Amino acid sequence: MSFVQYAADHPFPIQNLPYGVFSTDDSPATRPGVAIGDYILDLDKLSRSEFFSKDAGVAAEVFQKGTLDPLVATEPEAWPKVRAFLTKILSPDSPLKAKKDEFLVSSTAKSTHLHLPITIGDYTDFYSSYEHALNCGILFRGEKDAIQPNWRHLPVAYHGRASSVVVSGTAFHRPSGQILDKPGDTQPIFSECRKLDYELELAFIYGGSPTKQGSRLSTAEARKHIFGYTLMNDWSARDIQAWEYIPLGPFLSKNFCTTVSPWIISPEALEPFKTKQYDHDPKLLPYLDDPEGFGYDVPLKIEIKSPESDTYAHVSTSNIQHTYYTFAQMLTHHSVTGCPLRPSDMLGSGTLSAPRPDGLGSLLERNKGGKEPFELDATRKDMTFLRDGDSVKFSAVVKAPGGYSIGFGECEGTVLPAVPL
Amino acid sequence: MSFVQYAADHPFPIQNLPYGVFSTDDSPATRPGVAIGDYILDLDKLSRSEFFSKDAGVAAEVFQKGTLDPLVATEPEAWPKVRAFLTKILSPDSPLKAKKDEFLVSSTAKSTHLHLPITIGDYTDFYSSYEHALNCGILFRGEKDAIQPNWRHLPVAYHGRASSVVVSGTAFHRPSGQILDKPGDTQPIFSECRKLDYELELAFIYGGSPTKQGSRLSTAEARKHIFGYTLMNDWSARDIQAWEYIPLGPFLSKNFCTTVSPWIISPEALEPFKTKQYDHDPKLLPYLDDPEGFGYDVPLKIEIKSPESDTYAHVSTSNIQHTYYTFAQMLTHHSVTGCPLRPSDMLGSGTLSAPRPDGLGSLLERNKGGKEPFELDATRKDMTFLRDGDSVKFSAVVKAPGGYSIGFGECEGTVLPAVPL
Repeated sequence: MSFVQYAADHPFPIQNLPYGVFSTDDSPATRPGVAIGDYILDLDKLSRSEFFSKDAGVAAEVFQKGTLDPLVATEPEAWPKVRAFLTKILSPDSPLKAKKDEFLVSSTAKSTHLHLPITIGDYTDFYSSYEHALNCGILFRGEKDAIQPNWRHLPVAYHGRASSVVVSGTAFHRPSGQILDKPGDTQPIFSECRKLDYELELAFIYGGSPTKQGSRLSTAEARKHIFGYTLMNDWSARDIQAWEYIPLGPFLSKNFCTTVSPWIISPEALEPFKTKQYDHDPKLLPYLDDPEGFGYDVPLKIEIKSPESDTYAHVSTSNIQHTYYTFAQMLTHHSVTGCPLRPSDMLGSGTLSAPRPDGLGSLLERNKGGKEPFELDATRKDMTFLRDGDSVKFSAVVKAPGGYSIGFGECEGTVLPAVPL
Repeated sequence: MSFVQYAADHPFPIQNLPYGVFSTDDSPATRPGVAIGDYILDLDKLSRSEFFSKDAGVAAEVFQKGTLDPLVATEPEAWPKVRAFLTKILSPDSPLKAKKDEFLVSSTAKSTHLHLPITIGDYTDFYSSYEHALNCGILFRGEKDAIQPNWRHLPVAYHGRASSVVVSGTAFHRPSGQILDKPGDTQPIFSECRKLDYELELAFIYGGSPTKQGSRLSTAEARKHIFGYTLMNDWSARDIQAWEYIPLGPFLSKNFCTTVSPWIISPEALEPFKTKQYDHDPKLLPYLDDPEGFGYDVPLKIEIKSPESDTYAHVSTSNIQHTYYTFAQMLTHHSVTGCPLRPSDMLGSGTLSAPRPDGLGSLLERNKGGKEPFELDATRKDMTFLRDGDSVKFSAVVKAPGGYSIGFGECEGTVLPAVPL
């Protein structure tokens, strides 16, 4: 309960308290905040006020640098303290209530703007959904060789491009590049991407002290370093990818834009949704053992709005639980050869597909490599890949046993026409 | 000519003026400097002195932030002005001469320390040497399919890990991870890397304004944005790479350590060494046209010192000119789908191998995938891959027509034993 009023099923109740970075037209400097109902508590202002105290568990300066980076860089032991402090300061009998207009900003006002919450150092993208790997494998290699030999032994991943990560609501230009005009061609052409796709992912953020070169994290240690989660859309140019990716993996087909939702959801907020992790057969190597590991049972919704339509059409509902490896296992694997991890590094789960035709995390899977158009809505009877003007929105709201809801906010982006050469 | 005395063949004459970042035991804060002979001119101190003027072409604050990032972020038009100013301030009749002990620090003193000169945002590694691609292709696929279909059409690349880049002289632990014990195995084991290798590369640094999502650079524009060059060693765990890289490319096999030389050599300093670029057959797509393109004829030397030896043994001499694509073409390609480029992004050429058995840029090529050991020196008759305690040193010095020499300094690293699990 909070002195801030919100509907019983609001995605940002006091049990959620996601962190973000915002600015307002009146006060354009970015600053960290925490969402509650339709409001944002200004953490910069709070940290400079009489309401801030050592109970917060971190120094006031942590909130005064314009991003969440300083908070993400504090030790994991501090995070529950900050959360407890904020829960108390927002509680019904908080002294802040009397001055709430000073510290709370409307999150729905047009004058309020959300920003990328952290300065991403390195960004890694995994490929951890069995269902997605299977679907893609069947499309490219047939059923028998669908899952590649290494896939059940390690969480396959590649390095992404930190500079291309943008916050929800940022439109981007359709990429152009080298593609093959027809299957079997050997001479590429320069073209606008014809197979622009989304990938439904969950991103997680490494926090706490950096690791040293050569050191490793156990799965228990790795889990402690997960500061929080956001929704992520790893926009993908399938035709550019198909031509460029041999032998070093995706490059320009992925680095033109990656969208994340603005709110970072804490592991504590997701605690009620813990669910069984996948069984691992064959058994994983001992360094990946995660006896305390779990998934999260949180549905993830994909919607698309064509430029001819006023409303979003539902396309798919997957779930966070569809990672074959736990997030801790991904982070442990990332550290095993000694790669230095730093606070504000971002890691993506890879496309999350459910084992159902209505739970696919990419258009590639849904349209079988472009061969099976489907009806999006009355304005788009023959949907395959994304067209100019299409908007894609990911969202996640889940009901807790206590009756309240936890939401991630939205991860939305719109395709602008390609920039002419 | 300069008031600073140095030998006629010194690698850091007034015609070079490479930028770096240093500290001293007496003054441990990092600060930018420029190398001349065996000295470093303290640019932070210079910028706060009466010797600094608007002739420098950039604001004094550019040198006062502890790294070269602010200088790299200035517009390319400013860089020749800074260089001209430094050339003048170091000239024989400069007023600085009288106060040189205040502004010049010995670069060879044990109390002087060199640091990573920039804060790398994103790091991309290309695969641009035809000879290296051919050698690896023959090893893995045989002569006929050695060069893959896309290779002659685009500069293949992948995203590397910025957090793992260290400055020359930093020792690192041998990585451990998943490998196949024997060819044909399907169950991996956890093991120390058995095939630890180096890769001889040239890194180049993007400078100037960031590019916007969706915008592209022509090759002429791209060339202007190259702030400078360093030597780079992309240490590689071949056995970990072979198991993990399908289908998304190298990941943990490359992100445990990448070493760069501390001095950034400017395009102006390399001007006398320009040489013809490669012929492109088939013709490249028009967006990659680079009629003014060139390579650099600068020999690159690889030496190894075993822990049993006191001296480095020469292994190979390649050359910067062995990139099939010009550096401008690599940067242009990087921008073609609209990827945002930011100042202090670092890009690697990929392993540079010369078309000679004594010009190979990696051990993999030299030992034919481990099958042909060679004699390094009296202490190592059966060299294949790197052993614990081995040091690898890259260096480059080239004589200009005017009689002076231009050097890159050294890119050196030592293999420490693996950290036990």
